[in-house]
Amino acid sequence: MAIVLGDNQYGKAENRLVVVSRDGAVHRIKDLTVSTSLRGDLADTHLTGDNSKVLATDTQKNTVHAFAKQAPVGEIEDFALRLGRHFVSSQEAITGARVLVDEHSWERIEDHDHAFVSGSAEKRTTAVTVDGDRAWVVSGLRDLVVLKSTGSEFHGFPRDEYTTLRETDDRVLATSVTARWRYRGGDVDWAGAHAAIRRLLLTTFAGRHSLSLQQTLYAMGEAVLLARPEVAEVRLSMPNKHHFAVDLSPFGLANDNEVFHAADRPYGLIEGSVLRDDAEDPGLAWHTLPTF
Amino acid sequence: MAIVLGDNQYGKAENRLVVVSRDGAVHRIKDLTVSTSLRGDLADTHLTGDNSKVLATDTQKNTVHAFAKQAPVGEIEDFALRLGRHFVSSQEAITGARVLVDEHSWERIEDHDHAFVSGSAEKRTTAVTVDGDRAWVVSGLRDLVVLKSTGSEFHGFPRDEYTTLRETDDRVLATSVTARWRYRGGDVDWAGAHAAIRRLLLTTFAGRHSLSLQQTLYAMGEAVLLARPEVAEVRLSMPNKHHFAVDLSPFGLANDNEVFHAADRPYGLIEGSVLRDDAEDPGLAWHTLPTF
Amino acid sequence: MAIVLGDNQYGKAENRLVVVSRDGAVHRIKDLTVSTSLRGDLADTHLTGDNSKVLATDTQKNTVHAFAKQAPVGEIEDFALRLGRHFVSSQEAITGARVLVDEHSWERIEDHDHAFVSGSAEKRTTAVTVDGDRAWVVSGLRDLVVLKSTGSEFHGFPRDEYTTLRETDDRVLATSVTARWRYRGGDVDWAGAHAAIRRLLLTTFAGRHSLSLQQTLYAMGEAVLLARPEVAEVRLSMPNKHHFAVDLSPFGLANDNEVFHAADRPYGLIEGSVLRDDAEDPGLAWHTLPTF
Amino acid sequence: MAIVLGDNQYGKAENRLVVVSRDGAVHRIKDLTVSTSLRGDLADTHLTGDNSKVLATDTQKNTVHAFAKQAPVGEIEDFALRLGRHFVSSQEAITGARVLVDEHSWERIEDHDHAFVSGSAEKRTTAVTVDGDRAWVVSGLRDLVVLKSTGSEFHGFPRDEYTTLRETDDRVLATSVTARWRYRGGDVDWAGAHAAIRRLLLTTFAGRHSLSLQQTLYAMGEAVLLARPEVAEVRLSMPNKHHFAVDLSPFGLANDNEVFHAADRPYGLIEGSVLRDDAEDPGLAWHTLPTF
Repeated sequence: MAIVLGDNQYGKAENRLVVVSRDGAVHRIKDLTVSTSLRGDLADTHLTGDNSKVLATDTQKNTVHAFAKQAPVGEIEDFALRLGRHFVSSQEAITGARVLVDEHSWERIEDHDHAFVSGSAEKRTTAVTVDGDRAWVVSGLRDLVVLKSTGSEFHGFPRDEYTTLRETDDRVLATSVTARWRYRGGDVDWAGAHAAIRRLLLTTFAGRHSLSLQQTLYAMGEAVLLARPEVAEVRLSMPNKHHFAVDLSPFGLANDNEVFHAADRPYGLIEGSVLRDDAEDPGLAWHTLPTF
Repeated sequence: MAIVLGDNQYGKAENRLVVVSRDGAVHRIKDLTVSTSLRGDLADTHLTGDNSKVLATDTQKNTVHAFAKQAPVGEIEDFALRLGRHFVSSQEAITGARVLVDEHSWERIEDHDHAFVSGSAEKRTTAVTVDGDRAWVVSGLRDLVVLKSTGSEFHGFPRDEYTTLRETDDRVLATSVTARWRYRGGDVDWAGAHAAIRRLLLTTFAGRHSLSLQQTLYAMGEAVLLARPEVAEVRLSMPNKHHFAVDLSPFGLANDNEVFHAADRPYGLIEGSVLRDDAEDPGLAWHTLPTF
Repeated sequence: MAIVLGDNQYGKAENRLVVVSRDGAVHRIKDLTVSTSLRGDLADTHLTGDNSKVLATDTQKNTVHAFAKQAPVGEIEDFALRLGRHFVSSQEAITGARVLVDEHSWERIEDHDHAFVSGSAEKRTTAVTVDGDRAWVVSGLRDLVVLKSTGSEFHGFPRDEYTTLRETDDRVLATSVTARWRYRGGDVDWAGAHAAIRRLLLTTFAGRHSLSLQQTLYAMGEAVLLARPEVAEVRLSMPNKHHFAVDLSPFGLANDNEVFHAADRPYGLIEGSVLRDDAEDPGLAWHTLPTF
Repeated sequence: MAIVLGDNQYGKAENRLVVVSRDGAVHRIKDLTVSTSLRGDLADTHLTGDNSKVLATDTQKNTVHAFAKQAPVGEIEDFALRLGRHFVSSQEAITGARVLVDEHSWERIEDHDHAFVSGSAEKRTTAVTVDGDRAWVVSGLRDLVVLKSTGSEFHGFPRDEYTTLRETDDRVLATSVTARWRYRGGDVDWAGAHAAIRRLLLTTFAGRHSLSLQQTLYAMGEAVLLARPEVAEVRLSMPNKHHFAVDLSPFGLANDNEVFHAADRPYGLIEGSVLRDDAEDPGLAWHTLPTF
């Protein structure tokens, strides 16, 4: 028996970067959180502390900053691909890179040239994995909080000795959507696809009558795949943000699904993948080092 | 020398409440965080544990729920006044109440009848203080995050032995506005005033050239007071969310205020009050129990 | 009627500072969060953007760093006083300063010379206010989370039409203590007083049977004042972190106060001051700019 | 081409549970956060909203509560196994379960029978995966924050056109350890193993001179594997919590690694696995649904 180094990666997480495009009186801003991590021939630093193959995380940060200036940032997918490919191609020991970018939204203050107000907490995201000559792009969004005040039921579930939940044909359904979709290739209109997919997720959540959050999740993923041929797979993580109708009967009041307590914890958590049955193998697209 | 009970209050904090108006096919929702606290003849419970004057915090919570059903919630100021006056008028020992309400924003998903998407993190707020027959209303907003990519300077400050900051005639100015305005009386169009004041804060931030965040803060408060006769005083707390231009010169690149690192901590913090010189005494409007 | 500038202050918040004492093989560390704010003749910057009296917040940060090196940091009260007096005495326009310091706890890893493990989330705190030649010291602690699994009752409270809470003679009592105590003067053994007061708060919470959290709060303050002549006043903010006994009867199980759901929100919030009736006027000790 | 359901699971997350053992005057408490999720034949609910195979997440919550009463909770690994096996064995459609438990630490207040004070933010953790008759136990800890004030170097790293970092032979090394170790089987002294492994992690961090955080990570994992035959693999995620020595030279002061700014973001992030080369296949031990 010997003890060996297994999967590993290292990088600089959560570079907070604001890039201002000032090519005219009308400024544009990009507000990004960029995390880079590198993989490769990294046994030496782990075993002996020899860092000759360890591109410093400080250098990774500098590279993010420099790349933001050397060319227009563009779409986050392109920026992430550019960074990932740079690390893999320029460092012999580095064979893989993973670049995560979150984009925070801002809106203009009444069409002002250079003044902005922060949008919602929702982020547009991408996770690009580069391995040698290959690259995978998984884009998405997170913290998209949605709520339906009706049009959601939940019944027909099994009742065992620990079941007390009442069946309902009308409940509030609320969730904070994390969606990730794996693109089939790299020749994609990233911004257009993101906008269209986001709209499909929203309108499907809104328009489909729900018999379970699982059904809603599947419908959202399916809607994306039906409409967007460039997507191979959609993964969704949707907490059931419980809204409990308050019992007002002690006060002689009915509560016809009008007054709800929005609970924090515990919460339901529904996670699932929807994909094409002929989707190509995901390769390293989802490759993380799970520590939960 | 004796040891005595000083200022005190107690209540139920952070009731998370969603109220659905279902009077037709088109639903409306109010998402509120309500905190109530009561003041009065409360020495007994502190000194002996006699709770005969302590309206339970659980009862306060129930009251919030019941009041949300017994009549339309309406504007948060009216809801808070209704609650505060109820506690003071119905409990002999309770002489004062303070009710804080935060309202979270939601938008419809494409004009859907009953499906909504969460808005920004900004909250509309009110803090109502009732004392006997009197009441004070301080409304506001918080977590309104704004940024100007130019139109901000900072120079002419004193230089002592610890000063290293360079003067600048062009910087990014970003802040998360907490604003509280004290109304002169209770006969106010709460929703209209809030919308107008919010717009004044935003457009003044955007439109005024800034020589210091202090100047911007004062201008924002002044703009509200000039336009809104129902407001006696505006208090603003505005962290200076530093955006540092990254030094790209080691990489042979200029950085003409294009690439910024958005720092977390430390941050500047500018706090101030702007008021009418003939504003009536604030009474208990701002009365809290500071524990910092 | 004119519009005028009211109370205001500005500074640098949340300087995160770790100071290592390396005067021998055995290192000691101080982990501090320092916030400074200044008050004085600051109308110019607000009204015209003339910053000639505005000691930059960046300079305030530098001063904190330099002071941490120029002399041993010592106790946080001394460090805060040193900083506050420096700002007021060295800047003609600055007449007052407020310095807040939180100290984070670390423990040695098995008596190691220079390796440490983080302690609990509890912080030792001070808030020093300097005004001209005067100074006030309010020290304390926060995030001290305590729980009693019995020895707490709550009954005898009034029952109105919204009351549903059952009386109990045995409940879990849990809270996160924020305590602030105002010292009578400046000639205090800061570390010794803090340790003794912390112990009084803990042992009083533990030892006193509780008929209400208010009673517990008062007893804790009183215990400090009885034992510590250097303290004029104690202010406590104690959320009632509800632990609800779960109803296990649907599963044919009794729950004799054994299984509890620890709720997040809403929570009770009990706030109060306990003081000597001959305590000197607090002056500016508690002077903040409330924006809630 | 067809659209199909891929990997999926659902459950109840973050049940906050405090269990009091009252079998004598001296109480003991367990403070747990329990998350359960189930896998199996769940296509119906996704595709048609037929919930006949969906054990409600509310029922899962109830089961956690009931199990905490029906038998002593014991070690978190045993509790998680008991829950996971129950779900899989009692529901025909459910073929797999994953149960995560975090245990929060409390200490007695001076040997008091029933009064406790919260310990550090560090949690003891377990993640149990049950699949049919098989089970895997991955235990660990997280939020273990450690710091060395010397004994850490970083040099010899490659310098490319974006490298500005200076080499150092003395720096502060600080991290927040998340460790997960996969047990080889189920016949383990869970509490004893956890205590011993925790100590190995701490003493290795403290005792080993560090040439890189990667070297420290590997040494920590190796120390566990050398001493604990019941462990097959250790995964560590260790952010490099940067402490930057402040440049005091503008103030005429040297800074011999005494005054540091503790930065928030960005931070380094080192992740890696250390394992036996003859470790059995991990099976589903680490099986999550990555959405990053």
